[in-house]
Amino acid sequence: MRYSFASRTVSLLSSPLRQIRENARLNSFISLAEELPAQELFPVKLLEEAAQDVLASGPDVLQYGEPEGFRPLREWLIAEWENRKNAMIVPSQVLLTTGTQQAIDLVVRLMVDEGDSVLVENPTSPGCLQVLSMQGARVIPTVSDGNGLLIHNLEQQMKLHRPKLLFAAPTFSNPTGGVWDLGRRQDVLELCRRYSVLFVEDDSYGELDLNLKRGEVHLPSLFALDDGGRGGQVLYIGSFSKTIAPALRTGWAAGAAPVIEGMTVLKQLADTQSSTMNQRLLHRLLAGPPFSWHDHLALLNKEYATRLKLMLELLKRPLWKEVTWRVPEGGMYVWARLPEGLDSAILLKAALPKGVAFLPGGLCTAGKEGASYIRLNFSHPGRDELFLGMNLIGETIAEFTARS
Amino acid sequence: MRYSFASRTVSLLSSPLRQIRENARLNSFISLAEELPAQELFPVKLLEEAAQDVLASGPDVLQYGEPEGFRPLREWLIAEWENRKNAMIVPSQVLLTTGTQQAIDLVVRLMVDEGDSVLVENPTSPGCLQVLSMQGARVIPTVSDGNGLLIHNLEQQMKLHRPKLLFAAPTFSNPTGGVWDLGRRQDVLELCRRYSVLFVEDDSYGELDLNLKRGEVHLPSLFALDDGGRGGQVLYIGSFSKTIAPALRTGWAAGAAPVIEGMTVLKQLADTQSSTMNQRLLHRLLAGPPFSWHDHLALLNKEYATRLKLMLELLKRPLWKEVTWRVPEGGMYVWARLPEGLDSAILLKAALPKGVAFLPGGLCTAGKEGASYIRLNFSHPGRDELFLGMNLIGETIAEFTARS
Repeated sequence: MRYSFASRTVSLLSSPLRQIRENARLNSFISLAEELPAQELFPVKLLEEAAQDVLASGPDVLQYGEPEGFRPLREWLIAEWENRKNAMIVPSQVLLTTGTQQAIDLVVRLMVDEGDSVLVENPTSPGCLQVLSMQGARVIPTVSDGNGLLIHNLEQQMKLHRPKLLFAAPTFSNPTGGVWDLGRRQDVLELCRRYSVLFVEDDSYGELDLNLKRGEVHLPSLFALDDGGRGGQVLYIGSFSKTIAPALRTGWAAGAAPVIEGMTVLKQLADTQSSTMNQRLLHRLLAGPPFSWHDHLALLNKEYATRLKLMLELLKRPLWKEVTWRVPEGGMYVWARLPEGLDSAILLKAALPKGVAFLPGGLCTAGKEGASYIRLNFSHPGRDELFLGMNLIGETIAEFTARS
Repeated sequence: MRYSFASRTVSLLSSPLRQIRENARLNSFISLAEELPAQELFPVKLLEEAAQDVLASGPDVLQYGEPEGFRPLREWLIAEWENRKNAMIVPSQVLLTTGTQQAIDLVVRLMVDEGDSVLVENPTSPGCLQVLSMQGARVIPTVSDGNGLLIHNLEQQMKLHRPKLLFAAPTFSNPTGGVWDLGRRQDVLELCRRYSVLFVEDDSYGELDLNLKRGEVHLPSLFALDDGGRGGQVLYIGSFSKTIAPALRTGWAAGAAPVIEGMTVLKQLADTQSSTMNQRLLHRLLAGPPFSWHDHLALLNKEYATRLKLMLELLKRPLWKEVTWRVPEGGMYVWARLPEGLDSAILLKAALPKGVAFLPGGLCTAGKEGASYIRLNFSHPGRDELFLGMNLIGETIAEFTARS
């Protein structure tokens, strides 16, 4: 039969991500397009021990659990936020999700009717833009400089469009790895209050702090600034996918009780619940010893800083001479601007047959300027792959610039 | 701030399921409203061994995997369908999901625009009705007798409403536990072909065959009847939640490659992917020895048949004398009709303070006649709970009937 799909799925089905993924399955293909953490750093041995403990405790582990997620893990998160992040909330304000992607999908399904305006930091994560497009939101990109969103411009947009949500990642965004300064955080929160806009704070990469010199001084999240997480103006989302391991599929949303309740109802409709077994595993690990969460983060950040350093060295090579970038302060990516006139989607078509991929910037942007950018991942490829991959991409760029 | 939710979420947020769940958390509360399997029968020891094996194989297990799901588990399913169920398909026709609930959500998001007509077998699962309502579908209940949908009526509805989908569970439906006969299966499939309607076959309970006398003679699924799964007219969905363990959160959708591809793209937007670790665990278990899938199903069905027998005995007691029901042939529920004039939602309000719950029939029906029914679960409560719970519900019914 001929299948007639829903109208909003059509653009999703033709996304270039599918082509990248098909290629990435081939042996010897190098993908710098991925969002994968380094598997060498997964605490696999300790998770094996945790699994033994958890499954030995009996069949309850394998039953359906609370749809909000395993309560001791929600309590662990709350204690962590209280100790390290100046937020003090209660368990009914936390929902465990299947990664941040599900948290984004749920809040958008809860809040957004077709045609509703939603502001997004630009560039932003591809997953966020896809969800908004699927829900029929009117996506309005908002401008930032190196220190956060531009306040005057943001206020104009709020006045004009009356958006329901503002999506942003103030700490180590995907793709730029940038950080908003404290003043900008306070000002944006204040505007959200004034115009009654829910701020969705994507903190997926917030623990991946590569600026080791800054050390322990973290800027507060907007969630913490919003009366220690109790103000109701911010929905804070995050995940263990980049810090512990993706296959545990555990993220969270924390915010006002009515929003969390609504998301919980929608989560039951979407997949009944996430795996409480995996949530128990994570909780067993985190409650350690022998595992130390903070030592683990330090190890991760040291290794990722080394990988970033290598990528930055490679970007200085002659093949890359017309490409510009800002050094990311955290996260897993370098967001690089191509030479004038070169389109990243066209560049990708030329790169794939060479056995290499990057993420074309259009997937991270709501406007058109994304076509001038590419996103390069440095957390996953090994040293040799990174050398070879950067060389192949650099060559492809050089071939275009030599022609023009 | 005041939160302005999307228009279609409003009815979901006021569902009586929330009240049942709040009560069910209290100690000594007995819920016959749940969809929980018997945890005494989970293969927890063998899953513990499988977890050791799987995690000992290295960190790959914890990385992101293929969004379609762990390929060896998809291949195991394909072999199982080939050996036992007369379907012969290829891996690109199978997507692993977070339970059947996610499979339903994904196919509806893929196919249904607001206002599109969707036919549903009536009564049907609460989860299916919630998804359709959230997507803005025009839900059209279709009539069945004890042997399946009524063909003449179905054709009239197809002509009149031009539906995109038809949802049904021909083998052991939630809530009735009924079975369609072979002729009805063939006729419904033929109508779907003629009117270009995708048949979504919910086989969540298909392995829970309580009619032990029938033994190994299973009726073919509509999926198998549709050219051995290759016809493209049927999307077949199922899950290990009721047969192995819910916390592994593993279900599937199998069907035409373009539909599976579309659902895979939407799945990535919804939650990136399900846990490949859990899929590997399941595969390790199923590929046994020492585990035997077919012996395990036989054990499960023997125990559930015993529990059903007890419930049927209790239903014969005087307290239940004005209640009628059909003996289910499979699944986990008895679908019972209340005495004339008694509304199941009102009955529930009276039952909750006594410390007992059932599922009010309105949640399983698209029309209004659901108010006369309740759904009783016999798979989860232990023997004493079942006695006490049935007694309390029977008392509550008797109090109403005595009054009138």
